[in-house]
Amino acid sequence: MELHILEHRLQVASVAKESIPLFTYGLIKLAFLSSKTRCKFFSLTETPEDYTIIVDEEGFLELPSSEHLSVADATWLALNVVSGGGSFSSSQPIGVTKIAKSVIAPLADQNISVFMLSTYQTDFILVRERDLPFVTHTLSSEFTILRVVNGETVAAENLSITNGFVKPKMVKRPVIHPLSSPSNRFCVTSLDPDTLPAVATLLMDVMFYSNGFPSHLLFTSASGELWKMVRIGGQPLGFDECGIVAQISEPLAAADIPAYYISTFKFDHALVPEENISGVIHALKVSQGGKH
Amino acid sequence: MELHILEHRLQVASVAKESIPLFTYGLIKLAFLSSKTRCKFFSLTETPEDYTIIVDEEGFLELPSSEHLSVADATWLALNVVSGGGSFSSSQPIGVTKIAKSVIAPLADQNISVFMLSTYQTDFILVRERDLPFVTHTLSSEFTILRVVNGETVAAENLSITNGFVKPKMVKRPVIHPLSSPSNRFCVTSLDPDTLPAVATLLMDVMFYSNGFPSHLLFTSASGELWKMVRIGGQPLGFDECGIVAQISEPLAAADIPAYYISTFKFDHALVPEENISGVIHALKVSQGGKH
Repeated sequence: MELHILEHRLQVASVAKESIPLFTYGLIKLAFLSSKTRCKFFSLTETPEDYTIIVDEEGFLELPSSEHLSVADATWLALNVVSGGGSFSSSQPIGVTKIAKSVIAPLADQNISVFMLSTYQTDFILVRERDLPFVTHTLSSEFTILRVVNGETVAAENLSITNGFVKPKMVKRPVIHPLSSPSNRFCVTSLDPDTLPAVATLLMDVMFYSNGFPSHLLFTSASGELWKMVRIGGQPLGFDECGIVAQISEPLAAADIPAYYISTFKFDHALVPEENISGVIHALKVSQGGKH
Repeated sequence: MELHILEHRLQVASVAKESIPLFTYGLIKLAFLSSKTRCKFFSLTETPEDYTIIVDEEGFLELPSSEHLSVADATWLALNVVSGGGSFSSSQPIGVTKIAKSVIAPLADQNISVFMLSTYQTDFILVRERDLPFVTHTLSSEFTILRVVNGETVAAENLSITNGFVKPKMVKRPVIHPLSSPSNRFCVTSLDPDTLPAVATLLMDVMFYSNGFPSHLLFTSASGELWKMVRIGGQPLGFDECGIVAQISEPLAAADIPAYYISTFKFDHALVPEENISGVIHALKVSQGGKH
């Protein structure tokens, strides 16, 4: 198994719902006019609470500096688990539950904070750049660690830490944050960049001009699968607490339930297959120490 | 001939080139997401100097109030000359040179300031709402004056002025402002609203993210006609001076040269067929009293 350290240096930021008009100019450039920007990594997540933007340094320059943009205090790097050797193109995507034991749990054991971003194709594990030596040290026994430099995947330079740390005793990780699950059903989909212009007005409408998804729209997934969400967190979670992704993903991994996991500026969100939602909530509540 | 007074109450505003990101959110809604706004009249003109926005009251609410938005001091109404009886759909578009003698000159004679906006389909003559009684009085001998109310064209209520004014003596109107003509060639085109989504990213790029028209784009008109521009004005023209449109359109009408005429916040612009540009500039310079 390979762990790829991507070259994007990422910022994680939040925009309040009512302030989004200030950022539309830059966000439309990032989302729809890729030839106009040097940005290579861009994510926008809308929740009832805010918009979370994850963007590389080049893309960050497209956003106005504003008191209405809250930026997390660190630069983040994206990690990618790739099964089998070689390039991205030949690799298989791996669900977040599949990396729960090999990546998420060991990082939690070492008190390394992670920020997860699942996409249709792959799962990005974001870690603080300053934590990278600890990350690679923690994961080097399980993974071949490679680094992407100028688009080429090369062996990572030795980032080993002279004072190796003791492998911590594995402990149970109860779910400690409140959970909620909205009634919405979600579709996870992927778009060929070439088809983006054809759906741009539709997507702009959804992204910036609609409260929720327009009811007249029906995206259909090839598989027909629909997903339901578990939101993790009562108060905003912040970026320092470790182990939250592990608390959620380990029970899912134990039950072999596939899941997308999307961290936002304030809360975490797991998407699980519709038919598994009751079981998932039950299992997580048991882990919370609720009645069972 | 009919003169239709449209029901839109229009604002004319200007945004500096560098401030356009503040207004992109609202402008994209107005231009591409008509179902999201009650706006029924919207025009955006980009020049090297600024963006000029002409928009009805409902659309004006979509723009943020900002020190970066300069707004002309009046509410404007749009007039439309329709030849023959009946509805818009059966009417023929009429070029600005064709209304030079019947509309533009009489209004200039009465010192009524106008703001012109030619489109592919028609020519809008904007007048200040407070000037409407003078406008209708001036034009009532030549036109049947109709008013659009709730989308229906109805006979205009009697707007006659008790003290009718004396028909002024027709005078020659020399061109008094400096003229310039950029080397650019222009294509005037029209778009079915249904095809707008398909070209939205292209148009957004042109409108907000490009300096000038991207060179890799080639719009072709059905007729193959290309147009050249005469810009009127050295210093910004303001909104109070009367007769500018008349100074330009009367010589064009005398020579029977078709023209589009587009007023912006700072300058006026006439578009004439490429093959006529030398003749037009010569005729206008003669009218300026230049050497001939």
